Amino acid sequence: MGLLIQKVQLNGRTTDVLIEGNCFKKVEENLDVAGVQILDGSGMAMLPTFVNMHTHASMTLMRSYADDLDLHDWLENYIWPLESQLDEEDIYHGARLACLEMIKSGTTCFNDMYWHFHGVARAVEEMGLRAVLSSVFIDFNDAAKAAEQRELTERLFEETKQYSDRIGFALGPHAIYTVSKESLKWASRFSMENKIPLHIHISETQKEVDDCLALYGLRPIQWLDKIGLLGPNVIAAHAIHVTDEEIGILARNGVQVVHCPASNMKLASGVFPFRKMQAKGVALSLGTDGCSSNNNLSMMEEMKLAALLAKLNHNDPTLLPARTAFEMATVNGATALGLDCGKIEEGRLADCMLVDLANHRLAPGYNLQDDMVYSADSSCIDTVICNGKILMKAGRIEGEEAIVAEARKYKKRFQ
Amino acid sequence: MGLLIQKVQLNGRTTDVLIEGNCFKKVEENLDVAGVQILDGSGMAMLPTFVNMHTHASMTLMRSYADDLDLHDWLENYIWPLESQLDEEDIYHGARLACLEMIKSGTTCFNDMYWHFHGVARAVEEMGLRAVLSSVFIDFNDAAKAAEQRELTERLFEETKQYSDRIGFALGPHAIYTVSKESLKWASRFSMENKIPLHIHISETQKEVDDCLALYGLRPIQWLDKIGLLGPNVIAAHAIHVTDEEIGILARNGVQVVHCPASNMKLASGVFPFRKMQAKGVALSLGTDGCSSNNNLSMMEEMKLAALLAKLNHNDPTLLPARTAFEMATVNGATALGLDCGKIEEGRLADCMLVDLANHRLAPGYNLQDDMVYSADSSCIDTVICNGKILMKAGRIEGEEAIVAEARKYKKRFQ
Repeated sequence: MGLLIQKVQLNGRTTDVLIEGNCFKKVEENLDVAGVQILDGSGMAMLPTFVNMHTHASMTLMRSYADDLDLHDWLENYIWPLESQLDEEDIYHGARLACLEMIKSGTTCFNDMYWHFHGVARAVEEMGLRAVLSSVFIDFNDAAKAAEQRELTERLFEETKQYSDRIGFALGPHAIYTVSKESLKWASRFSMENKIPLHIHISETQKEVDDCLALYGLRPIQWLDKIGLLGPNVIAAHAIHVTDEEIGILARNGVQVVHCPASNMKLASGVFPFRKMQAKGVALSLGTDGCSSNNNLSMMEEMKLAALLAKLNHNDPTLLPARTAFEMATVNGATALGLDCGKIEEGRLADCMLVDLANHRLAPGYNLQDDMVYSADSSCIDTVICNGKILMKAGRIEGEEAIVAEARKYKKRFQ
Repeated sequence: MGLLIQKVQLNGRTTDVLIEGNCFKKVEENLDVAGVQILDGSGMAMLPTFVNMHTHASMTLMRSYADDLDLHDWLENYIWPLESQLDEEDIYHGARLACLEMIKSGTTCFNDMYWHFHGVARAVEEMGLRAVLSSVFIDFNDAAKAAEQRELTERLFEETKQYSDRIGFALGPHAIYTVSKESLKWASRFSMENKIPLHIHISETQKEVDDCLALYGLRPIQWLDKIGLLGPNVIAAHAIHVTDEEIGILARNGVQVVHCPASNMKLASGVFPFRKMQAKGVALSLGTDGCSSNNNLSMMEEMKLAALLAKLNHNDPTLLPARTAFEMATVNGATALGLDCGKIEEGRLADCMLVDLANHRLAPGYNLQDDMVYSADSSCIDTVICNGKILMKAGRIEGEEAIVAEARKYKKRFQ
């Protein structure tokens, strides 16, 4: 059955929007269609939903568990010990909480890297979102570990086919300091042969750069270029500590760079060179990172942070305007993942949200995109649709109380 | 009639809280009091509400009207022309929208500077918040204008007495580049004699510093110190472009400095020297600034921005932890205004909020303060109380639809 959204604001005009199957079928005033579910869109505006391009979704279980700490203290004494206690069922509950939070804040697609793959996949499948999922691939230069990881990757790639087409598989080599050169090259080949993304952390810290220089005499992006890893299939999270030459390499290879301002600020990782990235034409999207370094998954906050941070760092209030932030948070991410969502157009995947124009944060209402980037929060979102299905209506998601109740059990377990 | 909040979480323990008149009377388990209104606090936590220390509240009317522009283009071609068309009734509607937004995001007290004083005061009076209000005092070194402004100030100070004790009056000399030395000295005397705050923008831009150096051979804070303006009655917004010596002057004089991270970032004003301010013991609080340079009044966003920005700028993830951000946003502001709110203690003014512990943004719930600073948004807040009165319950404020509808009329008028 189709879904007809009536009298909704779209790009400043009142229209009807017909969804058939998982796609936008028709955008036109006063559509007359029989046998479809009707949704009254009056007083609301339709916008594309967000694509969160760098997550470790199940780290919602670590939200506010360890904040304001030095990176190594944080990882070694808090995050890793807790992570080592989590099994697939825990990861499933963490991912359910993450999906709930994402839907509530207008995100319907995310690019994830984490442990216990099927725990995340099951949660996404049930919650109705779209996701590209990767298992964390780490071999620490150990050949036996590498073989094990490759086997796991091949198996998970096959097993992903059991899920709906909302779930995609990606390679997830963690970073150059945790994965051997051989495994990186293997991952690159696997990614290209199977036409799936390769999701990796690149140049997040100065230490990563210094270590790479000491080991290879090259900076991370120079080295990755040399071993032939960089291409449009590569989704590079962070990319903070990069030279002009390296930005050129990213642009030339069509690498998809994910800017994560909240995480970079909270961990004091460094300043993202937005102006140069943009000037060289690097493909840019946005990600929240995990809930231990953010501590939420709100792409609305991420848009505002990205815009504000670029203006301050480059001493230019005209840089990274709301329009650019909104594109980075929607269509740019979709494009990076090779998905036909992130924009509301006939034929595209029906992922969208309805925002309540009577919400005080959107008043007086001169410019909805500016309001969404600089003023709105999750309370503005009324309805969320993914793949043609309504996931949230009037701010309510089915079963949300049980998801939160399950997540709150971890407080007793780990506090 | 008193108000008894039962079985609420306070500092991690379940307790009852009795409010009598406008104060917290008793905090104790299982209170047995007759003849009081009962509020069930189970499943909720009580926190102090926020004190927004630098606002131009009625600029909600300019929310998303002009973004991503160069400072002078923004002011001269958008903000000032629009402001010149607003009368007291408009300012009243803008302030109502601001009060609505503040209550929804947990703020019950703000320190404002704007035109058409009574428009703002009426809105605050009706909406039930607490505010310290100043009229914008600008004389541009014109003696006639100065005399007029002083007369207006004296009149408004008297007229403020018609309002309830939730509304205080403050001097509002705009800045050193818009107010004559004589008027600044007059304002300082008036402030001290009447024991009311003096609210001023200081060292917000490099231009202000350069102009001051050219005119007086001194930097703004050196010059203000020389003319005897600085003291604990002074609330200095921004204070970005300051030297170590000037920070010392601020500390020695007990000046109340208001950090406005969102505004400073959006206008690319500059970097606030948090570490040095803190090291020298300067009194620090937080403000959102007006909705044209933010574009909202959320102190939750401001806490997160302040914490993240300090960590990034000073390359130290342990700097400005959640606890400090929360204090800056609550009790520090109250102290700066000489008000006995910002903390939940017997005898203090009964300003507080109840947050819903079943909200997904607060799960698993290891650390509520961290969650409020780094994860929460307005959807977490269920109930807001100011001066012992319930202003919001179950997320609803009386008459909110009419306030937004009125504000939305400005879209037609100015778009």
